[in-house]
Amino acid sequence: MIARKNYITRLSQYKSALYRFERLGFIKIFSDYLAESVGVTSAQVRKDFSIFGIHGNKRGGYQISTLIEKLNDILGKNEVQRVVLVGGGSLGSALMKYKNFEKEGIKITAVFDIDPAKYNAKLSVPVLPVGEMEQFVKEHQVKIGILCVPDVAAQPMLDLMIKAGIKGVLNFAPMQLKTTDSCVVSDVNLEVELENLIYFVNASERAGKIEHAP
Amino acid sequence: MIARKNYITRLSQYKSALYRFERLGFIKIFSDYLAESVGVTSAQVRKDFSIFGIHGNKRGGYQISTLIEKLNDILGKNEVQRVVLVGGGSLGSALMKYKNFEKEGIKITAVFDIDPAKYNAKLSVPVLPVGEMEQFVKEHQVKIGILCVPDVAAQPMLDLMIKAGIKGVLNFAPMQLKTTDSCVVSDVNLEVELENLIYFVNASERAGKIEHAP
Repeated sequence: MIARKNYITRLSQYKSALYRFERLGFIKIFSDYLAESVGVTSAQVRKDFSIFGIHGNKRGGYQISTLIEKLNDILGKNEVQRVVLVGGGSLGSALMKYKNFEKEGIKITAVFDIDPAKYNAKLSVPVLPVGEMEQFVKEHQVKIGILCVPDVAAQPMLDLMIKAGIKGVLNFAPMQLKTTDSCVVSDVNLEVELENLIYFVNASERAGKIEHAP
Repeated sequence: MIARKNYITRLSQYKSALYRFERLGFIKIFSDYLAESVGVTSAQVRKDFSIFGIHGNKRGGYQISTLIEKLNDILGKNEVQRVVLVGGGSLGSALMKYKNFEKEGIKITAVFDIDPAKYNAKLSVPVLPVGEMEQFVKEHQVKIGILCVPDVAAQPMLDLMIKAGIKGVLNFAPMQLKTTDSCVVSDVNLEVELENLIYFVNASERAGKIEHAP
């Protein structure tokens, strides 16, 4: 969260939209259809694609299958992306079962936790002690991690992930973590998103009074 | 997701940080401590607070308890915010148990689903048929909803939420939904966040080659 809607985000969204059009039986698509389904202008779509040398045909639009393949290539999605998950609580467990990750070629390969009661190396996605993370990450060449542990554990767990060689972390703990140059941390802060929404809804109901609050 | 890090987002983050400082035994705090824990400049902190007429004391900083109360007031958090959840799948179930919502005064009051096998009106958070949403929302004056249903169900469910009187929706379905002027939709797109992260990690490893891809 708190991410800019940059062109990479838009490319991901175009791709999701293209899959939906493909499922509906479309073979070709015009930039304005794609633009509408993602909520941008068609000029933006054409501009984004041209950065990567993708050009449509004015009469026929874009070939959907070609476009999906190119987007997957750009997004590094033509190979499966292995991910580890740190924290096997309720949110972590839900993310493990989250079907949209698999659809996007993202595979959670292991879960690391500090609770011995959860350990089970025999599961299809094994639950392992955090002490085994470094070896696992190196053996399986994992670069991406999802961090969903309670607030107090977030920084020490991130430190362990960085030490293990993780290069990118999606952090669900609602706090700013300290990282190093070797690792990018991207925050998903669900309660801040919800608070934002509540604020805007309340503010619009109070008809602007909030701006003058002491 | 895809939200700007606007001042309301920052106010939420200041508040989370203040609660952590309070738990550590702090009574007062300087803007630079708060700035560092949220990842902004101290000038930004002072500017954000001054918008709402909150001023610190140069010698002693801000009184934490007063600051929390003011922030909660601004964010509409001094009253419990009632929320409904549409879609009781694995992600929905995890969100129901998500402790950080409760901590922030956000209460999920009911879950609506289309699967009769899930219905149970006797739970502390009842699981009810979507057909009962409109009546429930009106009776309990709920304004905010969380939407976590599969792609194909997202638009019809949003339409039902709007019809029921919901004014703000946090949408987890990875697609752009059509809304009306009466309802704000905020998207949380976990796979796009993860794709973004994967892209940046891969791109930095490929050392800029990606920018010249065809």
